[in-house]
Amino acid sequence: MWRILQVGLGPLGRQVAGELCARRLGRLVGAVDPHPELVGKPLSELVPGAPEGLRVAAGLEALPDAEVALVTTSSWLSDCMPIFDPLLGRGLAVVSSCEELCWPWLRQAPLAEALAERARARGGRLLGTGVNPGFLMDALPLVATAVVRELRSLRVERVQDAACRRLPFQQKVGLGLSLEDFAERAAGGRFGHAGLEESIAFLANSLGLEVGPIESSMEPVLAERPTPSGLGSIAPGRVRGLRQRAFARTEDGRSLELRFEALAGCEAPRDGVHITGEPEIRLEIPGGVHGDVATSAILLNAIPSLLAAPPGLHTMASVPPVRWQRGAP
Amino acid sequence: MWRILQVGLGPLGRQVAGELCARRLGRLVGAVDPHPELVGKPLSELVPGAPEGLRVAAGLEALPDAEVALVTTSSWLSDCMPIFDPLLGRGLAVVSSCEELCWPWLRQAPLAEALAERARARGGRLLGTGVNPGFLMDALPLVATAVVRELRSLRVERVQDAACRRLPFQQKVGLGLSLEDFAERAAGGRFGHAGLEESIAFLANSLGLEVGPIESSMEPVLAERPTPSGLGSIAPGRVRGLRQRAFARTEDGRSLELRFEALAGCEAPRDGVHITGEPEIRLEIPGGVHGDVATSAILLNAIPSLLAAPPGLHTMASVPPVRWQRGAP
Repeated sequence: MWRILQVGLGPLGRQVAGELCARRLGRLVGAVDPHPELVGKPLSELVPGAPEGLRVAAGLEALPDAEVALVTTSSWLSDCMPIFDPLLGRGLAVVSSCEELCWPWLRQAPLAEALAERARARGGRLLGTGVNPGFLMDALPLVATAVVRELRSLRVERVQDAACRRLPFQQKVGLGLSLEDFAERAAGGRFGHAGLEESIAFLANSLGLEVGPIESSMEPVLAERPTPSGLGSIAPGRVRGLRQRAFARTEDGRSLELRFEALAGCEAPRDGVHITGEPEIRLEIPGGVHGDVATSAILLNAIPSLLAAPPGLHTMASVPPVRWQRGAP
Repeated sequence: MWRILQVGLGPLGRQVAGELCARRLGRLVGAVDPHPELVGKPLSELVPGAPEGLRVAAGLEALPDAEVALVTTSSWLSDCMPIFDPLLGRGLAVVSSCEELCWPWLRQAPLAEALAERARARGGRLLGTGVNPGFLMDALPLVATAVVRELRSLRVERVQDAACRRLPFQQKVGLGLSLEDFAERAAGGRFGHAGLEESIAFLANSLGLEVGPIESSMEPVLAERPTPSGLGSIAPGRVRGLRQRAFARTEDGRSLELRFEALAGCEAPRDGVHITGEPEIRLEIPGGVHGDVATSAILLNAIPSLLAAPPGLHTMASVPPVRWQRGAP
């Protein structure tokens, strides 16, 4: 069994660590979160099923030996550098939900190069994944193109019920905000679904397409009636979610388009991939994929694929296909 | 540009070679088919777009240097051994439509081991793929499991219109046969869709499931009215296609089930993957994926993924995800 570290004990990190123990995919040997309310706490109080005797560490320094680390701290690569760098320096395989890491060359090319070099030099491996970015707008549509001889356009749609996602997600898509607050938050950055542009850059690069600038947009969707959410009932006129779109095109007219909707009171959640070309392929997932369950699942399922790849900075296009892992009986 | 050899110039081989040239995915530098009517013929007479000056060779001996070979000769591994063995001995990357090669350990474990050793010793690479087996009942459902934490059952369904497939396919699924002839052909083996059991073995092994014996069945479907096909109109009472099923189960009750239908006069062609577990995932491709277009496409699209993997005998689970290749402009 691999020895595994959990870095980050927010809602997602606790879920990942708990699932790791429940599925017996490895042995949780340490956990880190510098939050003052968490440091020193028995891990089993935060993570059901965690081994007795472990306490939350404030930093990476005193952690035991391990082969794998799971990092669920931030969507932003610059925030994660002080974590990734020493873990790779110790030669670990690091799987992270950091959205920017799904295609780090888009916004953080120098950091990406530094990580890649560090990983190769020290025998470490690093992969960013999740349900989205990582799977629904990345690995899945990429794999769907395997059977086409000509690709004219690739369009991916994700329409999901925001009210059944973890609370940080509901906050980040603006549930309950006024239109003004939404506009202010949107203008401030670090708001909305992170990773849409990373997904489009991943697809373009993995398909060998040189695209022009990525066009992006984000707009609020307002409640027309009182709408339940994890943040309380949303009054009519306040934000019940958002729509985002990213689009890019090649000089010869091939296009990539991603549409993302997260709404409280979503009536028809679904995921879909539509490829025009030869042959045309329309792939639908009625009801969609539940984001929180899927994100912790894929982070854990990705471990063996990352370990099977050579040392370095990886993406979902460079490791063998990630698939369900059974865990120890 | 890679130098590529085409081995086998039946309908699929000609299509693959023509598509290779049209998509500019590599340079076709030689082609082999021992059929007496083909040997010595100018390749461009058989393959539109093939370079002038190439002639069909009778065997592998006199072929020029190359990095890649495409082999489309037989569904059966034992038939392909005299081809795979010398190509691997020359260190080539070999992509083949041989159905048994998609999971060669099922029926031909000693041959598989010999090929794996040969490939590793000589720096060669070997991959069996195609639309099915290879993709629809293999890579695609495998990838769909990436986002589940628990898998109870995996069911894949393929319902296709046999009448728009290449003629050897229409023959092999029995179009136009009498019920008696169907029974005789079915009993004789090498009939029907090859690879269903390979697909189930691929899935079981790639998912780490120890399954009991694979149950398989095949039954004819009879025409109720005159039904057009590539082999002429099918009279009522004669075979318009077949249904096959393969099923396997683990000791703890997890199950894998594959359903395959190929019918002339198919009313609702479709492909689908249904995973029960957590979360449940239902993935549908209404209209289905056109088999002949998709098979030649994926054979060619697989080349870079195979070259990116270490030398050895590979499957769609051990190479980075196969995706559309753009080719040279």
